[in-house]
Amino acid sequence: MPAFHRHAAILAIGDELTLGQKSDTNSQWLSARLVDLGVMPGVRITIPDDRAAHARILVELARSHDLILSTGGLGPTDDDLTRHALADAMGEGLVEDEGALETLRVHAASRGHDLTLARRLQAMRPPSARMLPNRFGTAPGIHATLERADIFCLPGPPREMVPMFDACVAPALRADPARAVTTRVLHSFGLPEAEIGTRLADLMQRGCNPTVGTTASGGVVSVRIRYEGEAGAGATATAGVEGTVRGRLAPHVFGGGADTLASVVVRALSARCERLVIAESCTGGTLAGAITEISGSSEVFETGLVTYADATKTRLLGVPEELLRSHGAVSEPVARAMGEGALRSPGGASARHALAITGIAGPSGGTPAKPVGTVFIARSSRDGGEIGTEVRRFLISGARADIRERTVTIALAILHFHMSGVATPHLLWQVPLQGAKT
Amino acid sequence: MPAFHRHAAILAIGDELTLGQKSDTNSQWLSARLVDLGVMPGVRITIPDDRAAHARILVELARSHDLILSTGGLGPTDDDLTRHALADAMGEGLVEDEGALETLRVHAASRGHDLTLARRLQAMRPPSARMLPNRFGTAPGIHATLERADIFCLPGPPREMVPMFDACVAPALRADPARAVTTRVLHSFGLPEAEIGTRLADLMQRGCNPTVGTTASGGVVSVRIRYEGEAGAGATATAGVEGTVRGRLAPHVFGGGADTLASVVVRALSARCERLVIAESCTGGTLAGAITEISGSSEVFETGLVTYADATKTRLLGVPEELLRSHGAVSEPVARAMGEGALRSPGGASARHALAITGIAGPSGGTPAKPVGTVFIARSSRDGGEIGTEVRRFLISGARADIRERTVTIALAILHFHMSGVATPHLLWQVPLQGAKT
Repeated sequence: MPAFHRHAAILAIGDELTLGQKSDTNSQWLSARLVDLGVMPGVRITIPDDRAAHARILVELARSHDLILSTGGLGPTDDDLTRHALADAMGEGLVEDEGALETLRVHAASRGHDLTLARRLQAMRPPSARMLPNRFGTAPGIHATLERADIFCLPGPPREMVPMFDACVAPALRADPARAVTTRVLHSFGLPEAEIGTRLADLMQRGCNPTVGTTASGGVVSVRIRYEGEAGAGATATAGVEGTVRGRLAPHVFGGGADTLASVVVRALSARCERLVIAESCTGGTLAGAITEISGSSEVFETGLVTYADATKTRLLGVPEELLRSHGAVSEPVARAMGEGALRSPGGASARHALAITGIAGPSGGTPAKPVGTVFIARSSRDGGEIGTEVRRFLISGARADIRERTVTIALAILHFHMSGVATPHLLWQVPLQGAKT
Repeated sequence: MPAFHRHAAILAIGDELTLGQKSDTNSQWLSARLVDLGVMPGVRITIPDDRAAHARILVELARSHDLILSTGGLGPTDDDLTRHALADAMGEGLVEDEGALETLRVHAASRGHDLTLARRLQAMRPPSARMLPNRFGTAPGIHATLERADIFCLPGPPREMVPMFDACVAPALRADPARAVTTRVLHSFGLPEAEIGTRLADLMQRGCNPTVGTTASGGVVSVRIRYEGEAGAGATATAGVEGTVRGRLAPHVFGGGADTLASVVVRALSARCERLVIAESCTGGTLAGAITEISGSSEVFETGLVTYADATKTRLLGVPEELLRSHGAVSEPVARAMGEGALRSPGGASARHALAITGIAGPSGGTPAKPVGTVFIARSSRDGGEIGTEVRRFLISGARADIRERTVTIALAILHFHMSGVATPHLLWQVPLQGAKT
């Protein structure tokens, strides 16, 4: 057993992963949790359900790592081979664990079925290993030691894996106090990644500690600051760099850590006791979905109107039919009428702000004047008895799902900038209201 | 250069991946594409921005693979080290590629900025390698050969990587005609995975060809059928097994391949020229979002009402205040009134069906009688002049996001079963209307 866990490897097992039929969310989650706990995650490996290859990789990883976390392959079916591969790697066989067997018996009895041989396999472990109880499924996990490495085999379903990690693995981790990792992530919207790279060039040079790096996703550019060294020194070192980064990117930094544009907007509305109403067409409910994903959003959000059809824009938002006929549903006047109509509609009675979206997410529906990706976003806000509205036009690249996701991000950013009292800058994908030159 | 590509490895590079700050969608995408193209993907590895480790892994992989696809590390910043690691692995240095340099010069000139030394680095490659043009970004890809392995280094951003794979990598792949892979995936809802395992036990034994495996996600259990062997024989072999699987799981199989419950529901509505209106509370727009994610949904979906607040349920759906007071918003009578109210509301005038959802997604808001995860789902359908409604109660496990996602899946499944003319079976997480025993 190692004195400290300094080098961690993460292993994901399953044909459904290597064949690309299922996404592996466990490995990323484990990486992030290890960082939080001060253990440095290194390589991540995904392998098919192949007992020999699995055993070989465990042996190789145990030579250069002191912590190996694996997910998957613990179930009752024939392609669940993790316990066999682990036993092979350890040069041991498998024995039945009395406690685990009893748990399986009780579970089977409570469901009124027999404990089949296949299910009974889940109670097997290498003799020198111990079982990790599974509170949310039938397959227990396994903790074993190979060379100097601690190996934790966890089940594949995240709802079983996550609680098992927190209950059994996290308390067993021993972070190296001299190599503690402190990470801080800031999120920005509105500046291209290259521009941020230029502004932070000196901080991003290799060899710096803290290191600074950027990643972009859907228009949001995140800056990660990572300090590795004496525990205790990390907070001060990252805080200093964080201040510098915020200063150079202000006002574009909207949050850090687990913040999202949606969570920041909900927080700002909540702090000011203001409410939001949403009217959306091409995003079809995903803007409302992004807001209501945030716990506590019920304080600031009462109504979303998904007005996918022209007739519904008229019936629910009072958009004049004449406007739809003369300008088309995807137009500046209609976006404006949707935003103001949302505030005036029964669902918007108590709202201070409205966000309205109309656009063409594709793949069909585009025209030369309004190609796929054309989106109008209106923000309307009550100010005394008046309603003030700003409308922006965008030409967003990507497939249907990208266009919808980016539209939601931009709409949230527009409201965020407005509520921060910052003049909203020219945004990514924004084009003049009369359209881009072709 | 290998005669055929029989063993492929996929490599993803970046600290933001190994630190868990960003999800890697490229590797899964590449896996699935390779399967489509008849090349068997094996191990997938994710490594930090570490030049020495990167070079070492390339050398190791090249010993046992004939195809290596890597993503990331080709950009202009100091932590982009893919080209250096590749050169190290090949025992070569780096030279400037004239064509790539010219492309960078033109790009810089068009933006009115100088070609910095950092950006110029993107034109470097090992002398024996060749550049792969990038139509959607500045960093070209690289194609090299090491031992008998073809190595393709692709950029990290999916919008650059995907077109480069299709343009430069796919045409260069040589699938082994004797080991072609044919895959078919069927999706089911309503049966637990263990029950499916029992029904398909003989097909799922190891050593079968086609192999059959299952994976579960959010209540949907997918059955994958994979044949590996002579090209041409795969279609017949998988079709035979597919027929057997469908027979044993009917009526629970709702689709295959890229089908989702949402796409199947949209297709069924479209085929019958029927429309859907949605009223949702705790899912906050995500059910409407799931429907409108499907291209062509505008034919069958006009209106979604996100009635997050009680007042909005009354104003937009006509749910009597008295009902809300006496039963609470999360109740069978309110779900029923929401479904029927949605059909009678201005937005539901042309709809045949309504789905209505009211529940407690948490983390707060639960009570002993109605704990977090309690969800009522109503389906209302017009039949002549009448409206018929079914309401079901669920107690869904998981965190807020899980509860919301599973609720959407169940609601879609209820409508799917209804439209298929199948008596909707007792569903996962369903409990009696008066509540689960505690």
